[in-house]
This record gives sequence, C-alpha cells and structure tokens, in this order.
Amino acid sequence: MAEMIEPKVLKGFRDSLPEGEGKRKTLIQKLEKVFELFGYQPIDTPVLEYTQVLLGKGGGETDKQMFRFEDNGGRDVALRFDLTVPFARFMAANHSKLVLPFRRYHIAKVWRGENTQKGRYREFFQCDFDIVGTRSVMADMDTLLLMVKAMDVLGVPSYEIKINHRGLFHQLLSHLHISDHSTEILRIVDKLSKIGEQEVSSLLEGIITKERTKDILDFVQKEANNKDTLKKMERLSGGPSEASKRLGEILDLLDSQGLSSYFILDPSIARGLDYYTGVVFETFLRDLPQIGSVCSGGRYDQLANLYTKEDLPGVGASVGLDRLLAGLEELGIEMEDQVKTQVLILHEDSAHSSEYLKAAQFLRQRGIGVEIYPQKKKLPAQYTYGEKKRIPFALILEKGTESILFSMKELSTGERFDGLSLDMVLERLSI
Amino acid sequence: MAEMIEPKVLKGFRDSLPEGEGKRKTLIQKLEKVFELFGYQPIDTPVLEYTQVLLGKGGGETDKQMFRFEDNGGRDVALRFDLTVPFARFMAANHSKLVLPFRRYHIAKVWRGENTQKGRYREFFQCDFDIVGTRSVMADMDTLLLMVKAMDVLGVPSYEIKINHRGLFHQLLSHLHISDHSTEILRIVDKLSKIGEQEVSSLLEGIITKERTKDILDFVQKEANNKDTLKKMERLSGGPSEASKRLGEILDLLDSQGLSSYFILDPSIARGLDYYTGVVFETFLRDLPQIGSVCSGGRYDQLANLYTKEDLPGVGASVGLDRLLAGLEELGIEMEDQVKTQVLILHEDSAHSSEYLKAAQFLRQRGIGVEIYPQKKKLPAQYTYGEKKRIPFALILEKGTESILFSMKELSTGERFDGLSLDMVLERLSI
Repeated sequence: MAEMIEPKVLKGFRDSLPEGEGKRKTLIQKLEKVFELFGYQPIDTPVLEYTQVLLGKGGGETDKQMFRFEDNGGRDVALRFDLTVPFARFMAANHSKLVLPFRRYHIAKVWRGENTQKGRYREFFQCDFDIVGTRSVMADMDTLLLMVKAMDVLGVPSYEIKINHRGLFHQLLSHLHISDHSTEILRIVDKLSKIGEQEVSSLLEGIITKERTKDILDFVQKEANNKDTLKKMERLSGGPSEASKRLGEILDLLDSQGLSSYFILDPSIARGLDYYTGVVFETFLRDLPQIGSVCSGGRYDQLANLYTKEDLPGVGASVGLDRLLAGLEELGIEMEDQVKTQVLILHEDSAHSSEYLKAAQFLRQRGIGVEIYPQKKKLPAQYTYGEKKRIPFALILEKGTESILFSMKELSTGERFDGLSLDMVLERLSI
Repeated sequence: MAEMIEPKVLKGFRDSLPEGEGKRKTLIQKLEKVFELFGYQPIDTPVLEYTQVLLGKGGGETDKQMFRFEDNGGRDVALRFDLTVPFARFMAANHSKLVLPFRRYHIAKVWRGENTQKGRYREFFQCDFDIVGTRSVMADMDTLLLMVKAMDVLGVPSYEIKINHRGLFHQLLSHLHISDHSTEILRIVDKLSKIGEQEVSSLLEGIITKERTKDILDFVQKEANNKDTLKKMERLSGGPSEASKRLGEILDLLDSQGLSSYFILDPSIARGLDYYTGVVFETFLRDLPQIGSVCSGGRYDQLANLYTKEDLPGVGASVGLDRLLAGLEELGIEMEDQVKTQVLILHEDSAHSSEYLKAAQFLRQRGIGVEIYPQKKKLPAQYTYGEKKRIPFALILEKGTESILFSMKELSTGERFDGLSLDMVLERLSI
C-alpha cells in the first residue's frame, strides 16, 4: 500500500453534502418547472471548448481567469467560464436543426480562477435561459415575466428588477461626442452601486472632462418614477430613439400586466459584459440588496455573429443559483431537503433478512421510500441512525408470531403501534 | 469585428439538443426516484481534483486518458475520469459529517481522452450509487435489488445480472500457486466475452502453464444452475471460504425474493478495476448483449484507504447512462421527451400584446405550459412552428368581440372551437 494521500479538494472548490445538494436540487426543480411553463427547453454543451471559441468576445477579466491548457492532442482548450459564450457557439453550430424562435435553458457548472479571498468559488453553477431568433419586444417581456414568475414560485417576498437599455447610454455618449471612450466609461458606470458616485466621478474625470462627467452622472440618476426617468433619459441623450421607444413599450406592457411595481428603470445599470446591445436587467432581493443581483441578463443582437453570418438576435438572463440559494436561506425561505426515506426497517436478527427485504419491496412498490438498516446492531444505535437521518417511522419485525407482523414507531414522538400487517402499516403511513 | 471563428466542438465532445437532453433528463428523473425509494441521497464533488488524488489506485488505462494540466497556481490537476475515485476521497474527507452507513448517488459528467474511433465519447455521464460503512450482505443486496427495481421502472423487458466474487478467483489463483500474476490474469479473463476462449487461452499461456490455463478456463465456465456453479467454484478453489459463503448467502436471499431468474453466477466476470474486493456484477439487456453491461459494480472494502485510516468498506454500482439510453431506444422503449408546452398563443396583431400576455399568465398560473409566438407573422408560419414543436393547441384572439374570447385549434386534427373565454379554454384543456 502506497503512502496516504491527503483527501483535499482544490482551493476554491468544494464538496456538496446531501443536505446542501438536496436543497440545490429542489431549487433547480422549481426553476425548471417555471422554464417549462414558458416553453423553454433544456440543452447541454461540452464543459471543455477550444480556447479560441471561448475567448471570442468575453470580457477581459474572465479571459485571465480561464482554466486553460493544452490537451493530449495538442489542442488549446479551456473550461467554460459562463454558459452564454458556449450557447452562442451552440446556436451557430445547430441553428439549422432547431425550430426558431428557440427558447432554451441550461443549468450547469462553470469555472473561473477567481480570487477566493472574496469568498468566491472557482467552480459554481449557472442557470441561463434565453430566447433566440427574434428582436421582438415580446421576447424581452418573456424574459422579464419569467423572472417574476420564478421569484413568485420560490416565495421571494420582496424584490425589484432594475432595467435599462444599453443603446440609450451609447446614444448619450454619442450626443456628448465621447463615444470613443464608451467601453471604459461603461465599465466605470457599472460600478456605481459598489464604489459610489464620488469614486465614479473621479475615475471618469481621468478620461473625460468635468462637464461631461457631470452630464453622465445626471443621466444615471433615477427620477421619481419610471416614466419621468425615461423622459429625462430621452431629453439628455438627444431625443426619442429606437432604444427609448423599446423601453417605453416594455414599461407599458409591464403596466398592462399590473407588474410596474416590480420594475425600476435605472439608467445606471450598464452590465459589464460587452455583448449586450439592448435592454439589460438585474434583480435584487429588497431585504438583501448587498448580496448583489440574483438574476441578470439582457438583449444581445450580435452574440453569435462571432461564429456565423446567420442573424441570431437573442435575449435572456442568468440566475445566480448559489447566491440565490444563500440569499433565500438568509431570508428564512428554506428549500425543503425532502426527507425521502419514510420508513427504516430495523435489523434485529439476520435470520429474518428475507422478511425485511420482502417488507421493503412491498412498501417501495407502493411508492414509500424504505431503508433496511444493513446489519445487526443494538436497537438504540439503529434508532439514533433513523433520528439523525430524520426518517419518520421505524418498523420492527415482531418475533414469535405466526404471521408476519410489525411494530411501527414514530421516531419523533415515540408513539408505537403493535401487531400491524404490511397492509395496516401502509394504511398508517397514508394517514 | 474580428474574423469568424468556426463554431466547432472538440473531438469526442458533443452538444446535447433539446430532444436528446429531454430524454436524458427523463431517464435521470426515473433513476433518481428509484434511488430515493432506497434511501440514497444526492452528493456532488468538484470536476477538477489534484492529479495525485485521482491517480491514487485507478486502472493504468484511465490514468493515461486523463485530461491533466497545471493550473494558474502551478497545481497539478485533472478532470475526474470516474465518480468512484472522487467518492473515495469525498468519504475520507467528510465521513465525520455523515451518518453512517451512508447511501449516496451521484449523476455527473466524467472525462476520458479515449480513442474516439471506437464510437466512444470523451465526455460522458456516469450515474453511481453506493452504500458505505458496512460489510453486511444486506448492503450487497441493497445494490442488487436497486438494480432490479431500476430495470423494472425503466420498463426493460428482459435482462440478466451476472454476479461473481473477486475473492473466489484470488482463492483459485492462490490454490494454484499463481497469485503473483493475479492482476494480469484478472485483466485477461475479464476480456473473455469480448475476445473468446481461444484468445484468452493463448494470452494466459504467455504467463502461466498450459495446465494452469486449463484450470482457470474450467473455473470460469458456468454450470447448469447457480448452485452447481457455486459448488464447482468452491471445489476448484480448495473448498468453502468467506467468499463462497457470501455468494451462497446472496443467492439464497435472491431466491427468497423470487428473483433468482434475473441473476446468473458467472465466474468469468472479473471487472477490470483494481479496487473491487468482494462481490462484482454486470447487467446485460438480453436482447442487446452486444452493447455490454449497462450497470456494473461491486464491493470495495479498501477504496478509501488511500486517503484515510478510517474503515470505510462499501458496495455500489454505476449505470452507463448514455449506453442504457441508446439501448432502450434500440429496444423501442422511448423516454418521453415530454411536450411541456400545451398552448401556443398566436400573434396576429402586436396591439393585442397585453391580451396575449394576460392569457398566458392566466393559463400558466394554472400549471399550463404556454408560449406566445413572439412577433407578428403570417399565421401559417406560426402554425408550422407549433406543429414542429409538437404543441397540441393554438389559441387565436378573436377580433371585434366586446369581451376577450379565443378560438382554440387542435393542431394535430385541425379541430377548432370558437368563442371561448379563458375559463372555457381551461376546461377544454383538462378534458
């Protein structure tokens, strides 16, 4: 036998134990149900891709964080750092096999070599949903309404979705004749909620004049209501435009569905990623704004253009699963880690193994989750096992009876019923 | 805009489109339900591990096939090539946080740089379930009965589970005084069903004498029934032993459950992997034996010993998800790719968008999957979309009526009902 190997996981990686994994599964199941109510279909893509495919048009930060290497065949490959870029590649490769407009969701892991000191993990789940093949405002609405439905289904008591339009900001920069610096300016403005107005102001003044900086900071201020904010944005950016019209349509449609109160037009929302071209949005838990957005996205009309000449405009969003799960827990909204096992059959005498197995088979056939304690052991130890695993009932085979009868004990109360046939056990379980 | 990037996936990797992904999800859901009936709980582990952890005790072949590299922090890391080795590491790291005996399942991707010419993929799913912390025969039974239940639930019409015990074979080799070559001999015998007796014979004769080769080939022959096979194995290997007693107990317990006909004691089943120490098994579809085992496993009493001094014996199995799915499809057993969208709301006039949205909201609230066709388009194109996506019903908003009424068309028959309120639509959908 070789020397002992330390059973450690890599920095920034972690095991998922049954309780946490059960909760994540419950959250995912709930989200999947919502996706299906809206006609979104599941897809999957490889975890490894050609680095060139992933590098495409990502933000500069994620590039440096990629797990990138040369495979045994000498290919330059990397683990995906999000699900959006692989999806663009997927659409370019498969659009002819799909029915457009195409709605998809994808729940899977992604990897980023981030600084773990910020409490971030290098392996985490993303949950994306998109609709591709249409520029319609109704597709934007699809995304926003799905977000509302998901929050409802998860039982989030209070949240707000901040929306904006990338085009309007570009229009402002163009109107102010500072479009040359648009990428840097966008990145700085995107940090507004994190670093504050003063810091943003001084960063901007490193690039543009004081006056233009003031114009931008005026523009990103919200007004008393969405309509007023939109009017101001139009005014400062040089008048109505396609982008402001789209925002107006969205606000009207949200109004028509009685949902205005959930949405805030916020001109400071820029979203760091380069690929957004239209409406963008972020979702905040009102009681936990500090954890950041739990669901973000937007419209990207050129994403797949890196890989195909086919016109594949899309809109979608990404749910921050781990962040959302942690947030819900902090709000006291527990995802049930369903106790799947209902009955523990106690193992008093291995000579009765075949009776234990038959009883388990009988109950499982009727949909009841059953465990047989696998070996003979003192009963208190077996009860402790059942209690620790939160199994509600224990079954004990009664000895010395002619027919096969069981005692059934409710582990939380200690209440006990003797002389039960399996049919009677089943009856008791259904009460 | 940069040059176009070819949207290709790596050799041996593939995209999963909605239809295939839906079927895989259905298969996984069915298996998960069975796991839960038996009290197995979900876990997850990192996709990347220290290479040293993975190298541990794996077979030599898989080592060479690893996707191994140095990460940005200079660590020697690799993508997992199975779920068993990471599980051993998981148990060593987490046993004190778990309630033992511990039943877990894990369904996730693994990676092997295999020769793709054999029609194999470099990224594929594994589905493992194990019970750890007991040497009891009842844990072996748990695994075998779960396999039977899974085959039943999946609707597999005819299958057989071949079982054997690693210990008996080692006993034979010891009895024949050729234990020194046990690893090579095991690997050769494991190929019996693939390369045939003659080839195995000539390979063995490269290592041991003609006589010993004959002894081994005698030993691995099945007899007319399991009892006789067991008797012969005992006789040739020098008499009864712990291992033969364990096999006898399993055969008796299977008999007591009326399940003997599914199980064949087959002394030629060796399983290539080094870590098995006790009972081993493989599952074959009787109508498709050529695709190989769809569920294999065994008992490993020292697996975690590489990482811990804690005694963590276990038994479990792995379902070959992709192979099973392909096999079931070949047998005509379709996993439903559930049509989740029930209703397509047609988009005739964008001025009515808010009515479309309200109707969708009404129906989704009642659990009906609804899509709104996202943009105005000629109706035949919208019908074609619905038919291609196998959506059963289309809703058309009726114009010029005072109240909001819909026509509902069944797309497969063309049958149409006019003048329906949403309540009436709901009623029709529930028929």
